[in-house]
Formats: sequence, C-alpha cells, structure tokens
Amino acid sequence: MVARLESVDTLRWQGDVLEMIDQRLLPAQFVYVRCHTARDVADAIQTMVVRGAPAIGCAAACGLALEAGCQKDLSLPEFKRAMAAATELLAKSRPTAINLAWGLARMNDLIARDKTSDPRAIARVMLAEARAVLAEDVRINRAMGAHGAKLLKDGMRVFTHCNAGALAAAGHGTALGVVRSAIEAGKRLTMIAGETRPFLQGARLTAWELVESGIPVTLITDSMSGHLMSRGEIDAVIVGADRVAANGDVANKIGTYMVAVLAKRHAIPFYVACPTSTFDMSLASGEMIPIEERDASEVTGYGGSRWAAEGVAVRNPAFDITPASLITAIITEKGVIHAPDVAGLIALMS
Amino acid sequence: MVARLESVDTLRWQGDVLEMIDQRLLPAQFVYVRCHTARDVADAIQTMVVRGAPAIGCAAACGLALEAGCQKDLSLPEFKRAMAAATELLAKSRPTAINLAWGLARMNDLIARDKTSDPRAIARVMLAEARAVLAEDVRINRAMGAHGAKLLKDGMRVFTHCNAGALAAAGHGTALGVVRSAIEAGKRLTMIAGETRPFLQGARLTAWELVESGIPVTLITDSMSGHLMSRGEIDAVIVGADRVAANGDVANKIGTYMVAVLAKRHAIPFYVACPTSTFDMSLASGEMIPIEERDASEVTGYGGSRWAAEGVAVRNPAFDITPASLITAIITEKGVIHAPDVAGLIALMS
Repeated sequence: MVARLESVDTLRWQGDVLEMIDQRLLPAQFVYVRCHTARDVADAIQTMVVRGAPAIGCAAACGLALEAGCQKDLSLPEFKRAMAAATELLAKSRPTAINLAWGLARMNDLIARDKTSDPRAIARVMLAEARAVLAEDVRINRAMGAHGAKLLKDGMRVFTHCNAGALAAAGHGTALGVVRSAIEAGKRLTMIAGETRPFLQGARLTAWELVESGIPVTLITDSMSGHLMSRGEIDAVIVGADRVAANGDVANKIGTYMVAVLAKRHAIPFYVACPTSTFDMSLASGEMIPIEERDASEVTGYGGSRWAAEGVAVRNPAFDITPASLITAIITEKGVIHAPDVAGLIALMS
Repeated sequence: MVARLESVDTLRWQGDVLEMIDQRLLPAQFVYVRCHTARDVADAIQTMVVRGAPAIGCAAACGLALEAGCQKDLSLPEFKRAMAAATELLAKSRPTAINLAWGLARMNDLIARDKTSDPRAIARVMLAEARAVLAEDVRINRAMGAHGAKLLKDGMRVFTHCNAGALAAAGHGTALGVVRSAIEAGKRLTMIAGETRPFLQGARLTAWELVESGIPVTLITDSMSGHLMSRGEIDAVIVGADRVAANGDVANKIGTYMVAVLAKRHAIPFYVACPTSTFDMSLASGEMIPIEERDASEVTGYGGSRWAAEGVAVRNPAFDITPASLITAIITEKGVIHAPDVAGLIALMS
C-alpha cells in the first residue's frame, strides 16, 4: 500500500466564487478561471474550460448554486423563474453527458423540497450542497477505484482514451481513478494514452495528469491502439463514460467505439468506469443518446493554427456509442456490472 | 465519360534535375524541392518531402539515375562502387515500402545488363529509364483505375486513410486513382478522408488533392470512421499499400488496420489499390514486414508546436499490418485479386 496519489482540484470554491482549471490551456499553462454566475459556468462548459462528464455535472450543480446566490434577493416566484432560466441555460451547454442533467436535477430538488419560501435560505442550502457535491464526487471516485482496482492485475499495460481522470471530475478520476487506486494498492501499472483528436485530451490532459502523479505513461495517436493490440502490447482498456443507456450501451469520447471493437477482436478486457449518475435509465439503448457535433475548426487544425486544405467539408461528432456487447464490465461506486445488460444495471441501481 | 481529372506532377524532371513537391509544406505552400544527387533524394525521402510508396519507388530510381549522371566520369569499377553506395544510402532512407527496393533493383539491373563498360553510356540509359519510370507509373495507375473503377458504385461514400493519391505516385494515384477513374467513368462518388495523424496526410494532402480536382471530400479525425460506419455513412473503404506479403497481408499507414477491422464488422468492402511493384513475394506473411518507428516529436505536436505534456514517453510506428482476411480485394494494374491469398497473388503475378 503506497501513499495516496493526490490529484489536482479541477473545481474549487474560493469563498463564494467557483474556480476551475482552464483545461484548454493545459499543459502549457495552469490557470484557474473564476465563475460568478450560471452564465459564466455555462460558457465554461460550452467552450471546454471544464470537460469530462462528472466534472461538468459538478460544475452545473455549482453554477446553479452560484446563480441562486446572485438572485437570492428576488421574490420567491422571481427567484424560481431565474433558477428555471439558469437550469435551461446550463442544460443546453452540452448535450451528451447526462451528469449535467443529474447535477441540475439535484439542485432543483432542493428548490422543490424547500419549506422556508425564502430565496436567501434556499440559496444558502444550494451553496452548501454544491460544496458537498464536489467532496462527494471524490468519495464516489474512490469507491469506484476500490471496486475497479481488483480488475487490474499487477504488471498490466493499460490503454485509455480521452481523459477520464481527476481533471474530468472533482478529483481522483473515474477510469484513471481506478488506475490510481490499483497503484495505491501496490500494483505496478503502465499506461498508454491515445492522444484523442481533435481536442487532444489524451496528449494534453491524461499525459499531464499521469506524469504529475508519477504514473508511467506512453502517448500514441488514435490510429495506433489497434497495432499495439495486435502486437500484444495492451493488456486492458479502461475509459470513462458520458452517458450509459439502460441496456449498458455507453456514449463516450469519439473513438471509444473503435477501441472497443479492436479490444474485442484481441480478447482484451474493455472496462468503463463511471458513477451511477452517468446512467440514463430512461433510454432503452445507446442509439437514443444525442451525439454532440462540434465546430469544424477543431478538426481542421488545433489551437488557432489550421493545417487542413481549404474547401474541405468537415464532420465533428464529439462522442460515439459503444454497444454493451463489447464491454467487459462497467465499474461504478456501487459495484461492478460484468457483461452489462438491462438486468445488471437495474440490479445495481436498486 | 467526363474529362480526365488532371493531377499534379509530384515528381518531375527539369533538365537533369529532379524536382519534387515539398509535401511537408502542403497545403499552405506549393513548393518544388530540387534534387541533384542520390543523397538529396535520400534526404527528401527520409524527411518526407516525398512520401507514398509508388512515389518513393520512383524517387529512388530517379535518385540513382541522378547519381549516375554525377559519377559518369569515373572508371567503371569506381562507378559501380559509387552506384552500390548510393543504392545502399537510398535503400536505408525508409524501411517499410518495398517499392523503394523495386526502384533501385530496376536501375541496378541496367548496370548489370550493360555491355558498353562505359559509365557515360550507362548513366545515359539510367537517366532515360528514370524518365520512363515516371510515365510508366502514371500508366500503371490508370490501368489500376480502370480495373478498380468497376468495384465502386454510383453514389458511394468512400472512406480513405492517409494519401494514396497523385501525391503518393508520379500522378493519378493508386487508391485515389481508382476514385478518379470511377468519376471519369461517370460515377458520382463522395469521399471521406481520415486526417491521418501524426503527419496529417489526409487533412493536408488528400483533402488538398481532392479539392483541387473538384471531388467532394469531408475530413474527419482518425477516431471517427467507426462511428460513421455504425451510422451507415460509409459505403466502401479504399487505401494504398506500402508492401504486400505473399499471403495478401498489407502494410499500410498506421491506422489502416483499425479501419479494416471496423469495415469487416460493418460488412463494408475494404479495397487496397497498389501496383504489383508493392508485392513482396519473398515474405510469407505481414508479420515479417519491417515497421518503421519514427521520431517522437511527430506525436507530441505538429509543425514545430508541441501540445503534449512534458515527460510523457512516445511510440510512433508509421505503419501497421492488415491481414488478408480483412481485405475484400487488392486492385493492381494487372487486375483485381478478390479475397486475396497466396494462390491469388501467384496467379496474378504469373
């Protein structure tokens, strides 16, 4: 048992201001962005200052609490209208990750359950809850890590796509949280990170986060994981999720599906680590999950520089769907669902 | 039958100087690099001024002819030693594409068959042959196009990886040559190009070449082709090859294998277009093909800018192996090999 692997504070409260690491600038710059209103948070989510399903769920909850603090001097009906408007604004900021809706529902529950009829009292409760959400997210990720760590064996070379680390959550991480927990439990793991075009979460965020934590990591382009699998150089795959349908189909960063198909072909276990707040039991299958299509400029270049030929059309779906049949297990804070299906998800949730 | 789709001169003779488009600078700049010696050509191949298996085969042949022109005043034994050294230099410039060895063997055959014992006469023959090699490559690609065009149906949305176009050959192209020929024959095709990290041949070269030729093209990252296949948005895949083993296994740009596995899963035809000079009948299977590993800086960023976290390790295999079992057909200038295997390759070659 080694010491706990500390991770950064992706989101943090400084007094009544929410601060979040500007993940667009990592690893070149480590800068916190300050948010005072729901609109600040919605903009931060939309422009990917903050990204990662659990992190944007936390951010949305905090955004609504921030707005409650701003609007607490209104009459109750006006306050409720302002909260409804802020909820809608935040809900629209990105479409695929269900955690965003979860964070907003959690805050709106507090408003619905209020017995004081006093916006100042409601805002106080919401701000306290928003702080609790961050701490709870880290606890959830540590519980997930404890469950998932058992699946990773000493010496494994583990591939991950995108960033499902501390930077994608309030801390510790989901997929990388499982890796952290396994290493804390004494297992020697080495990581392989796919760069994750177009936003380069793998090259910029996962590589940075793992290097910072002293976990050995090798970077490859998204086209290379199949080759490494064919050469026997990958022992397991672990990724996060943006939404899980009732049948266990998983929406995650574009490219996840290709990795899952390749892992199946090479009989390599494919794990998804996510909190149960990522489950959307209202959707029968992954086909019903909305897939965000982002701006063409992300694909034609990076960071303000363009390399693609002028005149080319672009597609930029930000997520894809991995069918449950390709998933070895889904790791949650409540336990592990092997060979996920509707029955398995319902059993875990109840 | 529409007009011929003209393509650029990737390689061209200007007097006794070989010029090649600097493909590192496309599409931002269109510049020819001038080569006077075998070393100039070897450097151009190694640094990817010129790339693409048929193009580097042609370049190597031309490089040896250039060197013959430089050394023609030596004695015959000295001339032969200089040619052997230049052959070795060019052969080492890149390891995977067998066309390079083919181009060198073709020139060395001329030296071996010489009856004049006069280096000046040999150099003249070699320079004439080098010009012929370029014209012949375009003829071969047009023959390949005529065979392959029959496989592409009107209205198809065709995915291609990397650049197997006019820029990867002396002209017309292999995979894109088949597409050009099908369009010349009146078929309406739309293309989808994978960007092809790390060197971005898809985003820079294929997109540029297709836009220049007026062929509709949509750019995606390498992680997106599986998603588009799962949505029924890709009807066929066509790629080039750097080396084909005797059993039909194909070495091609890293990422090709992943696309082939996904195409198989979605019952989408997967075509490889290459001249028979790409066949290496001395290798029983793809596992024996050497895979070039290139510099880490290609993966940690692009064009002099770095985005990956410091301290991360890197793998950069430039090619992978697609087993014959995933290939619907190999299209060559001599005809099409359906469901390629040893018998099919031998039948075509004899």
